[in-house]
Amino acid sequence: MKTVTFTAPVNIAVVKYWGKRDDKLILPLNSSLSATLDQDVMCAKTTVACSKEFKESSLWLNGKREDINSTRIQNVIKTIKKLALEKNPSNEIISWNVEIRSCNNFPTAAGLASSAAGFACLVSALANLYEIEGDLSEIARQGSGSACRSVLGGWVAWDKGTNSKDSIARQIADENHWPDMRVLIIVVNAGHKSTTSTGGMARSVETSRLLELRAKEIVPDMMRKMEKAILQKNFDEFAELTMRDSNQLHAICLDTYPPISYMNDTSRFIQYVVHSINDFHQTNKVAYTFDAGPNACLYLLEENAQLVTSLLCKSFQIGAEVFRGNEIPKLNENIDSLLMEKINNYWRKFDANDIQHCIYTKVGKGPSPTEDHIKSIK
Amino acid sequence: MKTVTFTAPVNIAVVKYWGKRDDKLILPLNSSLSATLDQDVMCAKTTVACSKEFKESSLWLNGKREDINSTRIQNVIKTIKKLALEKNPSNEIISWNVEIRSCNNFPTAAGLASSAAGFACLVSALANLYEIEGDLSEIARQGSGSACRSVLGGWVAWDKGTNSKDSIARQIADENHWPDMRVLIIVVNAGHKSTTSTGGMARSVETSRLLELRAKEIVPDMMRKMEKAILQKNFDEFAELTMRDSNQLHAICLDTYPPISYMNDTSRFIQYVVHSINDFHQTNKVAYTFDAGPNACLYLLEENAQLVTSLLCKSFQIGAEVFRGNEIPKLNENIDSLLMEKINNYWRKFDANDIQHCIYTKVGKGPSPTEDHIKSIK
Repeated sequence: MKTVTFTAPVNIAVVKYWGKRDDKLILPLNSSLSATLDQDVMCAKTTVACSKEFKESSLWLNGKREDINSTRIQNVIKTIKKLALEKNPSNEIISWNVEIRSCNNFPTAAGLASSAAGFACLVSALANLYEIEGDLSEIARQGSGSACRSVLGGWVAWDKGTNSKDSIARQIADENHWPDMRVLIIVVNAGHKSTTSTGGMARSVETSRLLELRAKEIVPDMMRKMEKAILQKNFDEFAELTMRDSNQLHAICLDTYPPISYMNDTSRFIQYVVHSINDFHQTNKVAYTFDAGPNACLYLLEENAQLVTSLLCKSFQIGAEVFRGNEIPKLNENIDSLLMEKINNYWRKFDANDIQHCIYTKVGKGPSPTEDHIKSIK
Repeated sequence: MKTVTFTAPVNIAVVKYWGKRDDKLILPLNSSLSATLDQDVMCAKTTVACSKEFKESSLWLNGKREDINSTRIQNVIKTIKKLALEKNPSNEIISWNVEIRSCNNFPTAAGLASSAAGFACLVSALANLYEIEGDLSEIARQGSGSACRSVLGGWVAWDKGTNSKDSIARQIADENHWPDMRVLIIVVNAGHKSTTSTGGMARSVETSRLLELRAKEIVPDMMRKMEKAILQKNFDEFAELTMRDSNQLHAICLDTYPPISYMNDTSRFIQYVVHSINDFHQTNKVAYTFDAGPNACLYLLEENAQLVTSLLCKSFQIGAEVFRGNEIPKLNENIDSLLMEKINNYWRKFDANDIQHCIYTKVGKGPSPTEDHIKSIK
């Protein structure tokens, strides 16, 4: 029996992936870009064991047995076993059955893309098990598109490429490049399952003319600008690009037929709060981005974290108890009254019931073996 | 002293006008298409008087004095007076001061585009006063873009044209062409002023790349298809095109920076109810369209009016008392339980507080002199 355990991170895109040009290989319509988040706060953890004694292969997610024969899981396992056989045809463990146990240290029900972390973790663990080296993003991509970006740390581009071999992840800058960047995820109480991103994307590709135009005419330029803003650590520019790209994703969803609405009134209120802060300060202090659900993900610099979290808490009438994460900023009661008045003027009131919790985190590194795992190797 | 009184209709676009290519002349980025609504239910009524005795010109809207020197009002008055002088330079009444009194028989606060009816009415009354004939849509357009389409009855296209002379209204079919077409306007309780359509459009033109692509690549084909669907009275096709075009307008608003959200959770629930009805019946029974606010405007055939209104009433827990208009359908308690279950499964509940009232109406004719006015001529 051989066992390996890895953890892998979540990533939050600032240039969104939406739409496949090849459903089987999961080749995207456009390039995308994300930050990989700190695994101390959010990660998937996967243990893969293989043994001659296992009568069958099995998959367990968060303690519950799932179908290991699902197409995407099999895509990943088969591709890795094939590479392993090419490298070492006499490696007998490749023929053994596997037991995969994966869990997340954050609620999957929260609508936070857990499949990216999960597939990046599975691929990393399997590659380690079978001693495969080199790029893993091509394989992770075939499990879940955005998992492609979770195999690296820091700021990661997924270049659309021309085929499967070059539609892979590329690190733009590592996790230490922009050390004061922080990420605040606001998990919104929605009480409903959204359209899945896979289902939504397929419908957009089929019905939205604007998606085609976005992928062709808009994203290439957006990628160049975003990469530059990140490399130059230009927050003002980075924030505007991030918000514009998120809005465009949701515009495409609305242009889809029948339309898809991932954001709700609470999401839009958070948008309003963010624009109010930025307008008030005449420069971008914080940026929102929304994925396939109503949760907001805010990018902000540490120096503005107290301002932003304090204002959000006051806006939703919540306290520090809703925050999870490390080095959570202290709440400050001294909020400018003009800014607070602008927010109070919003057409609807929101309160603690509209928010589930907030996660405060930062940019982090890519998948890694756990300490237990490292110990067991030594 | 000479006095004329006209009434003019509201119109609801099914291919939306969004964005000007010339702000002064109000030339649109794209062609648009609407139905003119029955004046029995909703209209603007304008009396224009001119007299040698009037010391100054004045404007009264719904009984309140307003600035007659606003650019758009002056654009209209000056253009008409110029035409009148060209026709009959010795017509002394042209030099007299005017008193304009206009009112709507529906609440302006309801967020229903009243400026289209108002300017179509003003232009019609002034043209009659000064005995001008021929196309009036070019002049109305310079008061308010969508007023261009309110100068004609039935189904009206506003061709974008190449200059001011040919950016005018064209009747596709008159008000008798599709006699069983009905319109149900659901006035949603929003409690907030939206971004004005003028302000919103300007921001979209400046910041949304998708708007440029919509105007150039998508609307020309949409206009052809919509015109054909109307001429063929193909409701299924008409409904899909109408909903797609409305969704695209709001997609553009979201792609605008900062983003504009006219629809709220109530609007999206109405969208959901409409798609639920259509899915359930495997054909389009009703279409929604939304303008620069959260109110829904539904197009439907009379034979389906009972089904749709009954379901809406049950969904919002409202009764027949919220309806205004003529020949309001009787509510029917026998709603298919599967359909009702689907609607009850929506993630949020809505009730009577979310709705202000509903207006049931149909397609109608263009501006006309009032009976009082006709009597006074006889």
